[in-house]
Amino acid sequence: MSEPIFDTILITGAAGNLGTELRRGLAPLARRLRLNDREEIADLKDNEEAVICDLSDEAAVIAMCEGVDAIVHFGGAPVEKPWQEILDSSIRGSYHVYEGARKHGVRRVVYASSVHAIGFHTLESNIDARSPQRPDTLYGVSKCFVENLSSLYWDKFGIESVMVRIFSSFPEPADRRHLWSWLSFDDLNRLVTAALTAPRVGHTIVFGTSDNAIVPLDNRLAGHLGFHPQDNTEPYRAAVETRTPVPDPHDPTVARYGGAFVTYPHPDDDGTA
Amino acid sequence: MSEPIFDTILITGAAGNLGTELRRGLAPLARRLRLNDREEIADLKDNEEAVICDLSDEAAVIAMCEGVDAIVHFGGAPVEKPWQEILDSSIRGSYHVYEGARKHGVRRVVYASSVHAIGFHTLESNIDARSPQRPDTLYGVSKCFVENLSSLYWDKFGIESVMVRIFSSFPEPADRRHLWSWLSFDDLNRLVTAALTAPRVGHTIVFGTSDNAIVPLDNRLAGHLGFHPQDNTEPYRAAVETRTPVPDPHDPTVARYGGAFVTYPHPDDDGTA
Amino acid sequence: MSEPIFDTILITGAAGNLGTELRRGLAPLARRLRLNDREEIADLKDNEEAVICDLSDEAAVIAMCEGVDAIVHFGGAPVEKPWQEILDSSIRGSYHVYEGARKHGVRRVVYASSVHAIGFHTLESNIDARSPQRPDTLYGVSKCFVENLSSLYWDKFGIESVMVRIFSSFPEPADRRHLWSWLSFDDLNRLVTAALTAPRVGHTIVFGTSDNAIVPLDNRLAGHLGFHPQDNTEPYRAAVETRTPVPDPHDPTVARYGGAFVTYPHPDDDGTA
Amino acid sequence: MSEPIFDTILITGAAGNLGTELRRGLAPLARRLRLNDREEIADLKDNEEAVICDLSDEAAVIAMCEGVDAIVHFGGAPVEKPWQEILDSSIRGSYHVYEGARKHGVRRVVYASSVHAIGFHTLESNIDARSPQRPDTLYGVSKCFVENLSSLYWDKFGIESVMVRIFSSFPEPADRRHLWSWLSFDDLNRLVTAALTAPRVGHTIVFGTSDNAIVPLDNRLAGHLGFHPQDNTEPYRAAVETRTPVPDPHDPTVARYGGAFVTYPHPDDDGTA
Amino acid sequence: MSEPIFDTILITGAAGNLGTELRRGLAPLARRLRLNDREEIADLKDNEEAVICDLSDEAAVIAMCEGVDAIVHFGGAPVEKPWQEILDSSIRGSYHVYEGARKHGVRRVVYASSVHAIGFHTLESNIDARSPQRPDTLYGVSKCFVENLSSLYWDKFGIESVMVRIFSSFPEPADRRHLWSWLSFDDLNRLVTAALTAPRVGHTIVFGTSDNAIVPLDNRLAGHLGFHPQDNTEPYRAAVETRTPVPDPHDPTVARYGGAFVTYPHPDDDGTA
Amino acid sequence: MSEPIFDTILITGAAGNLGTELRRGLAPLARRLRLNDREEIADLKDNEEAVICDLSDEAAVIAMCEGVDAIVHFGGAPVEKPWQEILDSSIRGSYHVYEGARKHGVRRVVYASSVHAIGFHTLESNIDARSPQRPDTLYGVSKCFVENLSSLYWDKFGIESVMVRIFSSFPEPADRRHLWSWLSFDDLNRLVTAALTAPRVGHTIVFGTSDNAIVPLDNRLAGHLGFHPQDNTEPYRAAVETRTPVPDPHDPTVARYGGAFVTYPHPDDDGTA
Repeated sequence: MSEPIFDTILITGAAGNLGTELRRGLAPLARRLRLNDREEIADLKDNEEAVICDLSDEAAVIAMCEGVDAIVHFGGAPVEKPWQEILDSSIRGSYHVYEGARKHGVRRVVYASSVHAIGFHTLESNIDARSPQRPDTLYGVSKCFVENLSSLYWDKFGIESVMVRIFSSFPEPADRRHLWSWLSFDDLNRLVTAALTAPRVGHTIVFGTSDNAIVPLDNRLAGHLGFHPQDNTEPYRAAVETRTPVPDPHDPTVARYGGAFVTYPHPDDDGTA
Repeated sequence: MSEPIFDTILITGAAGNLGTELRRGLAPLARRLRLNDREEIADLKDNEEAVICDLSDEAAVIAMCEGVDAIVHFGGAPVEKPWQEILDSSIRGSYHVYEGARKHGVRRVVYASSVHAIGFHTLESNIDARSPQRPDTLYGVSKCFVENLSSLYWDKFGIESVMVRIFSSFPEPADRRHLWSWLSFDDLNRLVTAALTAPRVGHTIVFGTSDNAIVPLDNRLAGHLGFHPQDNTEPYRAAVETRTPVPDPHDPTVARYGGAFVTYPHPDDDGTA
Repeated sequence: MSEPIFDTILITGAAGNLGTELRRGLAPLARRLRLNDREEIADLKDNEEAVICDLSDEAAVIAMCEGVDAIVHFGGAPVEKPWQEILDSSIRGSYHVYEGARKHGVRRVVYASSVHAIGFHTLESNIDARSPQRPDTLYGVSKCFVENLSSLYWDKFGIESVMVRIFSSFPEPADRRHLWSWLSFDDLNRLVTAALTAPRVGHTIVFGTSDNAIVPLDNRLAGHLGFHPQDNTEPYRAAVETRTPVPDPHDPTVARYGGAFVTYPHPDDDGTA
Repeated sequence: MSEPIFDTILITGAAGNLGTELRRGLAPLARRLRLNDREEIADLKDNEEAVICDLSDEAAVIAMCEGVDAIVHFGGAPVEKPWQEILDSSIRGSYHVYEGARKHGVRRVVYASSVHAIGFHTLESNIDARSPQRPDTLYGVSKCFVENLSSLYWDKFGIESVMVRIFSSFPEPADRRHLWSWLSFDDLNRLVTAALTAPRVGHTIVFGTSDNAIVPLDNRLAGHLGFHPQDNTEPYRAAVETRTPVPDPHDPTVARYGGAFVTYPHPDDDGTA
Repeated sequence: MSEPIFDTILITGAAGNLGTELRRGLAPLARRLRLNDREEIADLKDNEEAVICDLSDEAAVIAMCEGVDAIVHFGGAPVEKPWQEILDSSIRGSYHVYEGARKHGVRRVVYASSVHAIGFHTLESNIDARSPQRPDTLYGVSKCFVENLSSLYWDKFGIESVMVRIFSSFPEPADRRHLWSWLSFDDLNRLVTAALTAPRVGHTIVFGTSDNAIVPLDNRLAGHLGFHPQDNTEPYRAAVETRTPVPDPHDPTVARYGGAFVTYPHPDDDGTA
Repeated sequence: MSEPIFDTILITGAAGNLGTELRRGLAPLARRLRLNDREEIADLKDNEEAVICDLSDEAAVIAMCEGVDAIVHFGGAPVEKPWQEILDSSIRGSYHVYEGARKHGVRRVVYASSVHAIGFHTLESNIDARSPQRPDTLYGVSKCFVENLSSLYWDKFGIESVMVRIFSSFPEPADRRHLWSWLSFDDLNRLVTAALTAPRVGHTIVFGTSDNAIVPLDNRLAGHLGFHPQDNTEPYRAAVETRTPVPDPHDPTVARYGGAFVTYPHPDDDGTA
C-alpha cells in the first residue's frame, strides 16, 4: 500500500499515550492526520494538523469532522472518573463525534472501547463478541454507551464502526494481569489499521490483546478484520513474575477481566462525604 | 397477599399514562406509594405521597429515595426527543435514580425499558433476552444505557433490577402493529408486580406484550419472574383491520420491532437547519 | 376480517386431499381462489376458478400466476416417488411456480414443505427452525430444494415465503406415530391462514402439527406467525392404541421424525433389478 | 388405555414417600408392580409383589430385575447423607440397578434425579437440559453419576432412560421456595407415566415441577415426553406467604436452584471432628 | 504415504480449470485417476483414463462409477447459468453421480460446493458450518441441492461426503474480494486430499480459502479434516490494490460473501424478453 | 520462572507412565514433589518424597495432602477395569483426594480426566468443553464422576480444578487413531504446567492432544490456560500408515472419539459366565 487510502483521518485523544502511538502507526494510511485533543499536541509533523477542543464542545467537535474520511475516536476519559467527567467527555463527547460523522458524511469510525465494557465476566468464560456487556465502572458504562450509539448510527445512518475493546495497552506489561491482557503499541496500530482498511466492517466488536500465551477470550467473530497480533508478553514474563506475587484466583481482580476496576469504589464517593 | 410486602415503593414518571396505571396496580403491594414527577400529580390518595422534581435534579432525586424499598422507574422521556432532553431526563435522570438507590440501600429497581432498545431486529428473528441490543433512536440508546448501568449496579453494588422492555402500552391497540405489540395496562401491572415480587431477579431483561395471537419474541429467559399476561388484542382486531390498510412487509416500520421509530429522522434535525 | 384481504390466491395441488381442505379454509381470505391441478377439480364454487396443467409445464405455470396476490403451493409429488417424478413435479414444478411469482409480482408464497425435509433427526432432539435439514427421501430432498430456492427468491427478489413443514395431515390419526405428528385439517387451515396474513414473514420455516400431547419439536422461531393449533389427538388415542402394537423405540421408524420414510428403499430400485 | 402396556414394572424405593405415590399412580400401566425397598412395604395390593433388599446387595438387586419390563428407580439416599451412605445406596445401588437392567433385558429406566444435580445454577439462568450439571451436595453428585451411567447404558447397551430432575415433591408446598419448585404427587405420576409411555426417549433429561406461576427453567427439550403438569401452587400461596418471611435474593439458598443444599456443610463433618 | 491409498479415484469436471489442478494434486493418492468431462481431456498420463460423457447422461455416469473407490465431483456448471443448464448439469448430473456411488459401492465423495451456497450472508457474520444456507443464484441453489442430497446418501446409504465450499480458486487473486476469498490451487489440492484421507468424515461441510490475512468465517467444525492452507494473498496485495479501487462496504457485492453473484439478474432473463 | 512457585505439589499415580513423565516435567514448579502410588516409586530424587498407599485408603490419602499447595491427580485405574476396581481406585480414591484437598486447604487440583468421558461423540462433531459428557466405559463414567465432584468442590469449597481430558499419551503414536489423538509427554507436561500456573482456572475442562494435523475438537474455552502444544504426529505418520490398514469410517471405533473403548464388552462379563 504505497499510496495512502484515506485523504484525512481524524484522531481524537491524539495527545494521549495511545493517540501518540496512533500518530506514528496510522501515518501511512492517510495524506493527513487531523489530531484532536483538549491539550496541546507536541511535535506536529508535516502530515499532521491539530484541532484543540474539548469533546464536550459540540460545535467544535462537529466542525472538526468536516472533510474527514475516517475517525479514530480515542478521546474521552481514559480510566474511571467521577460521573460528570465521564458524562462530558465520554458520553456527550462521543455523541458529538458521531454527530460530526453523520453531518459530514464520515464513512467509518474506529472507537477505543475497553475491556471494562465486559469487565465483570470471569476469565474462564472466554467470551466472544456476542456475549452480553457487563461493565465494571462508570467508565465501562460509557464504553457500552458508545457501543450502542454506534449500533444506531450503523443501522440508521450507515456509518460503519469498529469497537476495539482494548485490554491493557502500555509500553510494557507491568503486572501479572498484563501478562494476558497486554496489547503492545505495535499491535494496537495493527488492529486499528485492520479496522480502518477491512473491506467491510458494518458494526463490529473486537477484543484487543497481543498474541500472548494466555488469551482468555474468543475473537473468531472478527475474522473479517484480519487482525493478527505479532507481539506477546513472554519476553517480560520473568521480570514481572519476579517482582510481583502469585495472584489469588479468588480475588475478583484476578478472576474477572476488569482487574482492579471491578472492586473500585464508586468514583463520586472519592474524597467527599 | 393480604399484607403489603413493601413499606414504600417509589414510582417515577407517576403523572404519566403508565405511571397513573401503576398507582392503581401497585397499591396492594406497599403501605405507601411515593410518586415522583416533574408535573403535579392529581388526586393523591391516602396511601400516596408526591415528590415533584425533575429527574435531572441529582440532589432531589437522591433525597427522594430515602426510606424506599423498591423503585419503579418509569420517568424520563417517553418517546424520541432531542438529544439534550434524552440526556437530561433519561441518561442523567436514570443515573440519579440508581445513585439514590445505592445511597439509600434500595434493593430492587424495575425499569421501563423499551422495544426501542432492540428496535432494529426484524420480527422474524424472534429474539430472546440474550440477543444483542439494537436501538432504533436516541430514545432507544438511552434505554440501552440504563440496561447497562443497572448491570453495573447489580454486579458491583448488589442492587437487583428488572428491565421491562415495554412494547406498546396504551388503552387500546391503535394500529396493525399494536395487534402484536400491545401490552394492556392490566398486563403491565401484572408484569411490574411479578418483577417486584419474584424471589430473585438479579439483573433480568423481560419483554412486555400481552398474550396476543402474534408474539414475535421469546420470553423463556424470564421464567423466574412468573409473568403471565391475560389480555390480548383479538377483541380489537376487526376494528383495527377495518380502519387500517394491510401493511407492506418490506416497509421497515413493518419489518422491524421498532415500527415507525426505525425510520425517524434524527431528532436534532427537527425544526432547525 | 369480514373483507377478504386478497383479491386472488392461487392454490396448487388443489385437487389433492390437502388442497381440497384449503379450498374450504382459505375461501374467506380472498375474493377468488384460483385452483391448479393436473387433474380435474370437482365442484367448482362461485369464488373458484380452475387452471388445469402439470407443474412441469413452465409456460402454463407462469401464466397462471398472473393477477395473483399470494400462492399456496401444495402441488407436486405428495410422497416418495421415482426421481423423474420428483424432478418434474416438485423440483422443476416449484421452480416454475417461483418464476411465475417473480414475473407476475406475487408477494408471498406458502409452501407445503414436510417433516421429510428433516426426517432423519431423532425425536428427542426436539429441533427448531435453525436445525440443519436432514431429508429422508428424494421427496424430502425436493422439499429442501424449495426451502433453499425460496430463500434465494426472498433475498434477491423480495418474495416472502413460509415453508410449512407438515408432519401428518389426514382426516384422523391412523397410527401411533400420528398421535404426535398429526395436523388436523382445521389446524392446517389455521396455519396457512396465519402464514398468509402475518404482517411480516420474510423467509420463515414453521413446523405443522396439532396441539398434541407430545410435540417433539420447538416452534419458538415462528412466533411472528401467530399459529395456535386447537385440535389434538387425545380423542383418537384409545382407538389407535387398541389396534396398534406398542412401538419399539430402537426401530428407526419410531426413533426418527420421518417414520417409515427413513427406511424406504431407493425409489428407483422399485420393480426393477 | 384400558389394557396395561407393561407386564411388570419394578419400583425401587417403593416404601418411601414418592414410592408410595407411584404405587397408586403407576398401577394402571402394568399387570404387576414389583416393589423394592430395604424396609417392609405396607398394605401390598393384589397387583403388587415385594422384594425387600438393600440396593447395595448386588446379587439381590440383579435378581429382582428378572422379568421386568421397565424400572422406576426411586431408591437410594433421599437427601444429603454421609459419603458412605451416598456411595452404597445411590452410586453402588444404581450401578446394580443398571446391571440388573442390562442382564435381564429391561428396556427402559425412569430415574429420580434431582434439582440438586444442577443446584448451583441461579434461578435467573433458566437452564435447559443441555446446561452443564452443577451439583450442590454429594447427593447431587450421585445424581450426576447416574445421569452419566445411564448415558453409557443407552449408548452402549441400548437401554433407554429418563432422568427426572425432581425439584420438590411433597404433599403441599411448605415454604417460599416450594412456591416455584413444587411438584405435586399427581404431577409426579403424570411425569413418570409420560416417561414410561412416550414412544421414544433415548437418554432424556427432564425437569420436574408443577405448572406453577414461576417456572425458572426451560423444558423445551423434553417435548417428546408429552408431560403436561396440571397442578400449581397458587392455592397454597397465601398460607405460605403469611407464615414465612420475604426471602432475601442475595441469600444463596434463594438465589440458586438447590435452596438450602447449596450452603450445607460437608456431611462427613457432621457430629465428628 | 509412499503407497497410494486408493485404487481408483474418479474426478468429474476433469477438463476444467480446477479439474486440471486436481489431476496433478491427487495423483499420489491413487493408482489410477479416472477422468470425466464432456469435453476431451488433454495429455492423459499413464495413471489416467478418460470417460467422456455429459453428467446428464444417467447410464453413462452410473457406469463410470464402477470400480471406483472415491469420487471427486467437480463437474457441472461452474458459474451462474440458465436454469436448464443448472438443472441438467448440476442437479440431474449430481443425482447421477450419487446414484453411481450408491450402485457401485463408492465409499466417499468430495464435492465442489461453493461460497454461493451461502452467498447472501454478510462478511461480518463470520458464519460456520451450522449457519443456514443462503444461496445467491440458481448456481448456489444447485450447490445447496447437492449438500442436501449427499446428506440423504450419508444418512440412508452410508456414503460419506465432504462438501467443499470453494470461495475463489484461480491462479492468482484478481480483485479486492479475492484478497480474502482466494483459494490457491495448491491449497485446493491440500483440502481435497484432506477430505479424501481423513479417517472419518460422515457428512462434512468445510469452507475453502487459503490462509489469507482476512478469513471472514469459522472453520472450527472441520477440525477432523486436518486442512491447513499454506498459501495466502499477501504477495499479491500491492498489485491488486494498485489496480483496483477501494471497495464500498455498502455495496452488496462487497458486503456479502457471494460478491457479484448477489446482484446478478435472473439468468433466464439474459438476452431474451 | 527461576523460582519454583509452589512449595509442594502432590502427584498421585506417580509410578505410572504419565506420572513418571510428570516428575520430570513438574520439577521446576515446586521445591518438593510428593509422589504417591500404591507401588514403589523408583529412583527418588532429592526434590522428591514418596507416599506409598492405595487411593482407597481414605485416612492415608487425606493425610498425604497435608502441606500440599497443589495436587496433580493422575492415580486410579488407567483403563477400563471391572467395576469394583473402578469404584475403589477412581471413584472412592478421587473422593479421598478431594477430601484431602478440602481438609488441608489445597487450592488447586489438576485431574487426569480422559477422552473416554466423551468417547461416544463422533469425530465430526468437533465438540467443545460445553458439549455433554458421553462416557464410553465404566472408566469413562468414573472420569465424569470426578468432573462433577470437582465442580461441587469448586462451587462450594472454592477449590479450583482443571479437568484434563487426555486423549492418548504414549511415547509414540502407535496406530492410526493416535495420529490425531496423541498427546506427547512434553505436551502433557506443558498442559499440566499451564493448568497449575494459569492465574485463574475456576472449574475448567480442557482437551489434551498435541498440535496434530487433525484435531477434531474445539479448545477455545480453555484460552485462559494458555496451553500451546508444540509436538505433532507428522514425524510418525509414514511408519504408522505403512504398518496399519486404512480405517473404516463406519467402524464405531473409528467414528467415535473413544476408539476401541466404545465397543468394549462390559468389564464384569470378562472371564466369567
